[in-house]
Amino acid sequence: MSTETRDTIYIGKKPLMAYVTSALIQLANLPAVNIKARGLSIGRAVDVAQIIARKTENAGYTIGDIKIDSEALESQDGRTRNVSTIDIEIKRSGS
Amino acid sequence: MSTETRDTIYIGKKPLMAYVTSALIQLANLPAVNIKARGLSIGRAVDVAQIIARKTENAGYTIGDIKIDSEALESQDGRTRNVSTIDIEIKRSGS
Repeated sequence: MSTETRDTIYIGKKPLMAYVTSALIQLANLPAVNIKARGLSIGRAVDVAQIIARKTENAGYTIGDIKIDSEALESQDGRTRNVSTIDIEIKRSGS
Repeated sequence: MSTETRDTIYIGKKPLMAYVTSALIQLANLPAVNIKARGLSIGRAVDVAQIIARKTENAGYTIGDIKIDSEALESQDGRTRNVSTIDIEIKRSGS
């Protein structure tokens, strides 16, 4: 009864294809995954989503909802700074 | 009869607030503007959209459709590379 299947990929500093692979493995088992990133990794999250969408056009994965937001992070000097975030949904089309 | 009012802000290397100001000027005259960026500027486009959404919460501007795509660009060595793009709509809510 565990519904805690991991369905979110957080983008960091690994090579792009590592995240593409993780996402494709998730998508083999789940109807959708979310790709999340913040700050400087936002562009890389878009790259990952685009690679998946292009490579799996025949498999029928498409880009769903895209949300942007910002988070207050405390920096090392104790001040809070706002950091932008992105959340890109990739889903099986039609199902 | 000119409908060619400029309603797209392309994000480049200027300071973020330059784009925020441009967008707010457009929004004073138009119901919506689109903020576009590609490659490394994608994160900055999200920053600009978030600053506008936060600063104008009372004025009623909200983030609308967000689209991501990729463009084939020819690099200096003559090869084509795919570059990710983002297009964030900011619109007057309710009108």
